[in-house]
Amino acid sequence: MRRFLDLADFERDEVSALLELARRLETSPEPRALAGKILGLVFFNPSLRTLASFQSGMARLGGNSFVITPGQGTWQLETRLGAVMNGAAAEHVREGIPVLASYCDALGIRAFAECKDLANDLAETNFKAMAELVDKPLINLESAINHPCQALADWKTMDDLGVPRNGRFVLSWAYHPRALPLAVPAAAVHMAAMRGMDVVVLRPEGFALPPDIMSKARSAAARSGGSVRETADRGDALAGANIIYAKEWGSTSVYGDAQGDAKLRGELTGWCVRNDWFTRTAPDCRLMHCLPVRRNTAVADEVLDSPRSIVQREAYNRLVVQMAVLYQMLKGV
Amino acid sequence: MRRFLDLADFERDEVSALLELARRLETSPEPRALAGKILGLVFFNPSLRTLASFQSGMARLGGNSFVITPGQGTWQLETRLGAVMNGAAAEHVREGIPVLASYCDALGIRAFAECKDLANDLAETNFKAMAELVDKPLINLESAINHPCQALADWKTMDDLGVPRNGRFVLSWAYHPRALPLAVPAAAVHMAAMRGMDVVVLRPEGFALPPDIMSKARSAAARSGGSVRETADRGDALAGANIIYAKEWGSTSVYGDAQGDAKLRGELTGWCVRNDWFTRTAPDCRLMHCLPVRRNTAVADEVLDSPRSIVQREAYNRLVVQMAVLYQMLKGV
Amino acid sequence: MRRFLDLADFERDEVSALLELARRLETSPEPRALAGKILGLVFFNPSLRTLASFQSGMARLGGNSFVITPGQGTWQLETRLGAVMNGAAAEHVREGIPVLASYCDALGIRAFAECKDLANDLAETNFKAMAELVDKPLINLESAINHPCQALADWKTMDDLGVPRNGRFVLSWAYHPRALPLAVPAAAVHMAAMRGMDVVVLRPEGFALPPDIMSKARSAAARSGGSVRETADRGDALAGANIIYAKEWGSTSVYGDAQGDAKLRGELTGWCVRNDWFTRTAPDCRLMHCLPVRRNTAVADEVLDSPRSIVQREAYNRLVVQMAVLYQMLKGV
Repeated sequence: MRRFLDLADFERDEVSALLELARRLETSPEPRALAGKILGLVFFNPSLRTLASFQSGMARLGGNSFVITPGQGTWQLETRLGAVMNGAAAEHVREGIPVLASYCDALGIRAFAECKDLANDLAETNFKAMAELVDKPLINLESAINHPCQALADWKTMDDLGVPRNGRFVLSWAYHPRALPLAVPAAAVHMAAMRGMDVVVLRPEGFALPPDIMSKARSAAARSGGSVRETADRGDALAGANIIYAKEWGSTSVYGDAQGDAKLRGELTGWCVRNDWFTRTAPDCRLMHCLPVRRNTAVADEVLDSPRSIVQREAYNRLVVQMAVLYQMLKGV
Repeated sequence: MRRFLDLADFERDEVSALLELARRLETSPEPRALAGKILGLVFFNPSLRTLASFQSGMARLGGNSFVITPGQGTWQLETRLGAVMNGAAAEHVREGIPVLASYCDALGIRAFAECKDLANDLAETNFKAMAELVDKPLINLESAINHPCQALADWKTMDDLGVPRNGRFVLSWAYHPRALPLAVPAAAVHMAAMRGMDVVVLRPEGFALPPDIMSKARSAAARSGGSVRETADRGDALAGANIIYAKEWGSTSVYGDAQGDAKLRGELTGWCVRNDWFTRTAPDCRLMHCLPVRRNTAVADEVLDSPRSIVQREAYNRLVVQMAVLYQMLKGV
Repeated sequence: MRRFLDLADFERDEVSALLELARRLETSPEPRALAGKILGLVFFNPSLRTLASFQSGMARLGGNSFVITPGQGTWQLETRLGAVMNGAAAEHVREGIPVLASYCDALGIRAFAECKDLANDLAETNFKAMAELVDKPLINLESAINHPCQALADWKTMDDLGVPRNGRFVLSWAYHPRALPLAVPAAAVHMAAMRGMDVVVLRPEGFALPPDIMSKARSAAARSGGSVRETADRGDALAGANIIYAKEWGSTSVYGDAQGDAKLRGELTGWCVRNDWFTRTAPDCRLMHCLPVRRNTAVADEVLDSPRSIVQREAYNRLVVQMAVLYQMLKGV
């Protein structure tokens, strides 16, 4: 495996093999497998799980890693092609990224959406421009519209807990004080569709996922026997749900318009997942969330502190599935 | 050993065994002892010695570590229970801490006192709330009222230099431009009392150590044959002293009142340890300080640059005793 | 080797041996050579290449490293002797540096020029004061007036690409929005002179390199058979050049005077290296730059994206030559 950028780049049996490898490494550690190998990690945006779990995963396999955080200990990096660099950024990614790639055996890059222009973010313009500069194995640590490590960890989490392949997976919009990127919702619906699930996107008006994201998920569902639809009706969505996957994202009807978005979401503080979302129609339903989550804003304490919540297992599985990705990428299986 | 949170959790012979192990690892390195083990380090506050020595210590034992600094490369973490998280913090410690614990074999946490409410700080409310969330071995990297790694390093330093077990240990308040936490003074008086020393706390009016701290030290002294008292009389305190342990801390009479504290300490700039503190009554007396120290503010150049100063050895011993803690915690002896 | 502070501390055959070792490690990795060894890295200034390549290099040799960035996760460090420390800095380098040295087997320090007083910067006052405090092997990661790791990487890069030992090396001033230190130009002219090259310093009026730097380079040239001169005439300088080494630096005629410098450089935005610098007189000439480089400000896209540019190889060679330095320093050959 040379690149781990999008779960959609893999066939279902390739994903199954990765998850099998993850389970094997979970039970039978191989502490010298990646001895002498170096992982470079570049974070254009904050991180907790990705930062800690990739360093830990490399070390558990006997390898090592370094972390670069542009603008913090390192110069700010310019990403615009052709820029006349007389501002704050001292270095261009066209120099910085290949240099870092030359110091390691695999590189991971995190670069969130700018959340200004939807077409630009959907096209992964920024991440793709950097990816083209890398001649080493490359991992997407979350780009404008994707988060494959999270998606793979979520898949394993549902397998671990026996959530049926054809169960109902409800991706529900949740309130957040400001607009967040579409990367996790896009990755989650695609993953659940690829797993063969009955996927429902529950979101208020103005927050529909873009057609590109929905059609990509639908085409995965077509191959796996799953389905994908969207609704603003909570009762309809949650009936018989196996999973509520809560996630905050920005308005797509006024994408990039912070004031317009704020006006829309100002009416939506009720979209905080509480116990009464579950009780009537989905007694065994679990709560998933990629974290970080704002307590009592996106999800209430009563849910996060209940046995319904499997967010800790999702986070732990980040470590496990990433070790499988690193292993397959750097050792070759 | 599952937890290293407070020297008071250990019997004297357990401390002796730890120091014995530290001396053994100092002379007979075991570079593969902790191969494959991962230490997670979480710093809510700045660090130099702790940050460098724990990473170095793990590596010297063949292990590895990762560092998380909330608010810097990582989201700010909320600590208040039940908070409605619509402010700056994107993640709660109730998620963040267990997640990080799941990525490592032992976790260290640094979280200084808030210095607002004395009872709250004395109760270690914040640190204990986080400690309850950790199901892995846990190390206190300095909490509101404790710093057991520093205390253990200080104990070894006095052993290394032949300071008598029943010698006089003077913890002296020293000037600093603003109020600092009580963690190190509390840990130092308890450690010296537990070691069996004649402990004198020398401090100006308004800076007495809280009764809880004094009585904990006195009860350690009762078991070890030492003693603990306090005074504002420098001549009395320093007569025959073996150690002046200089430390800056905030007023306890107006704890949490920055203006009141500033008014009190404004008169106390003379509490900078100088050569003339020693010459008359304690010619062989040594200077200890946990560092960082403000030169010519808390302690004068003439003292820090003289052979009296053993601050470098204290700092070096941080590495050595922490290796013993890690070894006992992760290898089990 | 105890110290790697200045290429001028070594004889030419010692440099050759280091480069030979670098080539050996490049083709025959020794992944356990420095097992159990710890490198401490202290960055008073930002870094990308140095930060990543030293961590990677230690790991590739089986060792480990820790990074300290004063003012970021760590207290600010005071450097002035005799300072009364009642300001922002909580710790003095007189404590901090020896403490960090006691936690590792070799220490690297980066401390840029203050760019206020030329004599002070030329004397390396700040770096030397810190170096005196270190009793472990020490590496200069860029000081006020030197950057030996960059110089060694540049030397290897020219060897790799068959640039003749007696070829013409033109260090050309390039535009930058503000004054930068003299470390890289000083190190580059000395390195090229020591390599035996025909060195020409091309710079506008007001930006002549200080006599100390020129005479040091000339004395290296005298021993190697090279030569060193300066000019403001681009056509003269570039005739027959093998290398244009572009670099931005501050005015030396008004050193430390930001306004005076800004006025001078405001007229010099034309000093951006473009294709037409090459075509007429030096068709095979290569572009070197230590990076970071501001595109279309110091060097145009058309040059950086052309085969003339060897900046990536220079950056990659940082890793390779530093592994040789670490190997010789920590293993002894």
